[in-house]
Amino acid sequence: MTTPGRLMAAEIAEQPQVWHRLLADGADAIATVAARIADAAPRFVLFVGRGSSDHAALYAKYLVEITHGLPAGLVSPSTMTVYGTRPKLRDVLYIAVSQSGGSPDLVRSVEVARQQGALTLAVTNNANSALAAAAEMHVDVLAGRERSIAATKSYTAELLALYLLFDRAHGGDGRHAARLPDFGARVLACDIGGIAQRYRFAQRLITIGRGYSYPTALEAALKLMETCYLSAQAFSGADLLHGPLATVDTQVPVLAIVPEGAGGQAMLPVLSRLAERNADVVAVGPEPALEHLADRITLPRGIPEELSPLLEILPLQRLALQLAIARGGDPDKPRGLHKVTETL
Amino acid sequence: MTTPGRLMAAEIAEQPQVWHRLLADGADAIATVAARIADAAPRFVLFVGRGSSDHAALYAKYLVEITHGLPAGLVSPSTMTVYGTRPKLRDVLYIAVSQSGGSPDLVRSVEVARQQGALTLAVTNNANSALAAAAEMHVDVLAGRERSIAATKSYTAELLALYLLFDRAHGGDGRHAARLPDFGARVLACDIGGIAQRYRFAQRLITIGRGYSYPTALEAALKLMETCYLSAQAFSGADLLHGPLATVDTQVPVLAIVPEGAGGQAMLPVLSRLAERNADVVAVGPEPALEHLADRITLPRGIPEELSPLLEILPLQRLALQLAIARGGDPDKPRGLHKVTETL
Repeated sequence: MTTPGRLMAAEIAEQPQVWHRLLADGADAIATVAARIADAAPRFVLFVGRGSSDHAALYAKYLVEITHGLPAGLVSPSTMTVYGTRPKLRDVLYIAVSQSGGSPDLVRSVEVARQQGALTLAVTNNANSALAAAAEMHVDVLAGRERSIAATKSYTAELLALYLLFDRAHGGDGRHAARLPDFGARVLACDIGGIAQRYRFAQRLITIGRGYSYPTALEAALKLMETCYLSAQAFSGADLLHGPLATVDTQVPVLAIVPEGAGGQAMLPVLSRLAERNADVVAVGPEPALEHLADRITLPRGIPEELSPLLEILPLQRLALQLAIARGGDPDKPRGLHKVTETL
Repeated sequence: MTTPGRLMAAEIAEQPQVWHRLLADGADAIATVAARIADAAPRFVLFVGRGSSDHAALYAKYLVEITHGLPAGLVSPSTMTVYGTRPKLRDVLYIAVSQSGGSPDLVRSVEVARQQGALTLAVTNNANSALAAAAEMHVDVLAGRERSIAATKSYTAELLALYLLFDRAHGGDGRHAARLPDFGARVLACDIGGIAQRYRFAQRLITIGRGYSYPTALEAALKLMETCYLSAQAFSGADLLHGPLATVDTQVPVLAIVPEGAGGQAMLPVLSRLAERNADVVAVGPEPALEHLADRITLPRGIPEELSPLLEILPLQRLALQLAIARGGDPDKPRGLHKVTETL
């Protein structure tokens, strides 16, 4: 009998090593693609992805908007596949993100985008995939084969590849990312304590973040849904206040991602509103000056906010793993899911 | 003692009349704005909104992408307010959607967009709002004062105003929308039967749709969260299969929006996967050829798919109202919420 969650646990633990490999072996390929992007000087950037890769795409959308000042959007592939749209994509950089590179709707949307004049890039974990072949450019995130159905190492490898790509296209040399493998190893060495036990019987949970950390909230919720089957809902801190706050009471726990920097600061008024409602809030971040917390997952200080999503997700992947096992499940065998999801 | 949900019920019922007013009295103003947009020939369209207005913005994003073939994106206001970005917005049409026109983050993002060269438009239900003043152009959705905290009539008025705007900008005369008030009145006259009772003790619920109907799924989930406090999660049908499907069992009911047209057809494989899992599915749409349904909310045939979101949401607004009352709540007084939400 295999240990429940063996694959997922191994791939979570592997992440610092994956990042190290990508930093060392992926840099040249990323620099080449970054140079082509800088030459093309796109005016708009569109991203497309599904599941965890959609969250990596959203992270990159924030990067592009904030650090490059370019307008950006997330494409629904259905506009091209279901509705047959042929959009006008001159001056557009079109980036598809996918672990497997295998979903037919993403491949088709890249083919259409390329025909319609976009500069197309596939960011995948499979250089031999249909998606890598369909796009003019490819970045391999070098995570190695991912066997766990719940993506972990491929997600953070996508985040890092996209960070390095836009940092390079913007004239950077990736130096801020160099310390990530060490930081990651430190974060993974910390115990997350009794937090998984805390949620043993929860059926509902809310995750929140703002800006760069909103994708972390989405990805954490997806991991919890996939492996623990609870209704985990992610909201941007601001959107929570526009309606969903009504669902929060003392029986609906909240995981709040609170990094150093502007996004974390912008969470403080949201946390105040949650405190007014006596919500059960666990904060994830580098010891912010927060009161009323039920518990805290502490992350190290000193990482730039735009890189903090790589660290924030690590304890939350482990939370999903431990909680799934505590509930008697096997996170390596989520019910109803397959590793490559094919949607049209 | 006032009747619970009196305001919400009145505003739900008022919608056909609101649409009629917008079609009759709003057409000239919309035509003027549409002509300016056509003259400017934007190459990219950005939308910004919160809550229900964010769902109206997403609907319009599908319209722009599918019928105009223009790339489009949803902006997070935080990029401009929290992170202080000054994006390059030449050739961009920037549209802010808001019932009240009062949230400071939206106002600020429109000010920045205008400074940065975008053509700016506010779509609001308040011609005297700060948002209407900040944008170069304004479309008043003419829904009349909305007193219910859970937005209903302003949501469908926003959908209709955005439809008419882009139809007009594309050379249309709005004729397909002319029959909407009659259709709406017919839909509102139908009983939704025992469906509210069915969910009396549900704590979790999933709504799904694809393409134009995905905003309906999001808006229905928000209404159920705001008024009934359950964890209602909306997914695009395709995204559901990329992970969240694992959360579905016989105890997590699913509301599936299945319109006539391509988006509805694209839902059929998703419904098959749900049937395999013995999910409890209630379909909303014009009697599709579906098996395995727990129940159905039937909508009339013969409305173009891009207008169907106006009709689909009506029985779901009523479901939220009736379920909130059945649970002993007052949907006019959702806990923790105010009519105008101010986020920064």
